[in-house]
Amino acid sequence: MDGYLIKFNNMQKLPLNKAFMLLEPGPVVLITTVNGGKNNIMTISWHMVMDFTPQFAMLTGPWNYSCEALIKNKECVIAIPTVDISRKVVEIGGCTGADTDKFRKFRLTPLKAKSVKAPLIKECLANIECRVTDHIRKHNIFILDAVQAWIDAGRKERRTIHANGDGTFVVDGRTINYRGLMTAKLPPGV
Amino acid sequence: MDGYLIKFNNMQKLPLNKAFMLLEPGPVVLITTVNGGKNNIMTISWHMVMDFTPQFAMLTGPWNYSCEALIKNKECVIAIPTVDISRKVVEIGGCTGADTDKFRKFRLTPLKAKSVKAPLIKECLANIECRVTDHIRKHNIFILDAVQAWIDAGRKERRTIHANGDGTFVVDGRTINYRGLMTAKLPPGV
Repeated sequence: MDGYLIKFNNMQKLPLNKAFMLLEPGPVVLITTVNGGKNNIMTISWHMVMDFTPQFAMLTGPWNYSCEALIKNKECVIAIPTVDISRKVVEIGGCTGADTDKFRKFRLTPLKAKSVKAPLIKECLANIECRVTDHIRKHNIFILDAVQAWIDAGRKERRTIHANGDGTFVVDGRTINYRGLMTAKLPPGV
Repeated sequence: MDGYLIKFNNMQKLPLNKAFMLLEPGPVVLITTVNGGKNNIMTISWHMVMDFTPQFAMLTGPWNYSCEALIKNKECVIAIPTVDISRKVVEIGGCTGADTDKFRKFRLTPLKAKSVKAPLIKECLANIECRVTDHIRKHNIFILDAVQAWIDAGRKERRTIHANGDGTFVVDGRTINYRGLMTAKLPPGV
């Protein structure tokens, strides 16, 4: 592990049954991995919720440097960045871990995770520790099962960003509430 | 096909290479199918882009009435609703096509698609005609390849909604532009 890995964790535990709520809205996320002692980060929008347990799917392939780490170590962290670090999120997607220490270059702080070796990112709103439980090679789909989730509960900026695919991003706006229409459909505890 | 299917199409053709941009931000979408002459609609957030071609993945299983139509007819339409019809979108997710004609109940207008039998939805911002090209039963994942895309280019309301998973939804806010940072990474034509 990197020498600069910080062991103090500012994140509070988030009940696992609420972790799907972080990905359900479809934000741009960061995926951290560690491979041969080197931490890495990639930026992705190609992910979806698969179950409330929670389970996620993510699409990536050999064109991404992180793919080898996912296949080899079968774990990662999904970190949820907010609009305040959106420029870094885009820049992280524009360079490769093959020649760049992205934590150092973008001044992000790796925090020790509890159940996986990949680090959490201190500057993100939340982090989900995941194990890779399946890899559908034909479609470049990784199946991720969450094992721990963390949230920076005191954080003021909570607006995530969503990629439009053309280099522009939409920021979360107002929230509308239809809980009354959905009570029968909501999973327990959310 | 239903007698009330309207053949006049207010949608303009959207180049297929831009259609991934409709799903990349992760909005709540409507999926239309037709089975035994009956149109149906379901509401989902569990989808992701897989390729710019465009190809999408969507998660659904036998617990959804639309699943049979997807397996049997191997086609659907992904319709993109905006905030003005968000209440209908939630209510569509709260009832089943087994006993409800959702187009009729929610006063939505089915438009004849060009390449599939499932209908477009006139009241949506855009519609993507898709063929089911694979079904990963183990994970309840459907792989969808788009064959035609349509957009209501004159529409003023273009803000989509994103499910938080607890019955609340976040509406698109402002747009930020990082095209200058991403030119090397953008697919051609977007």
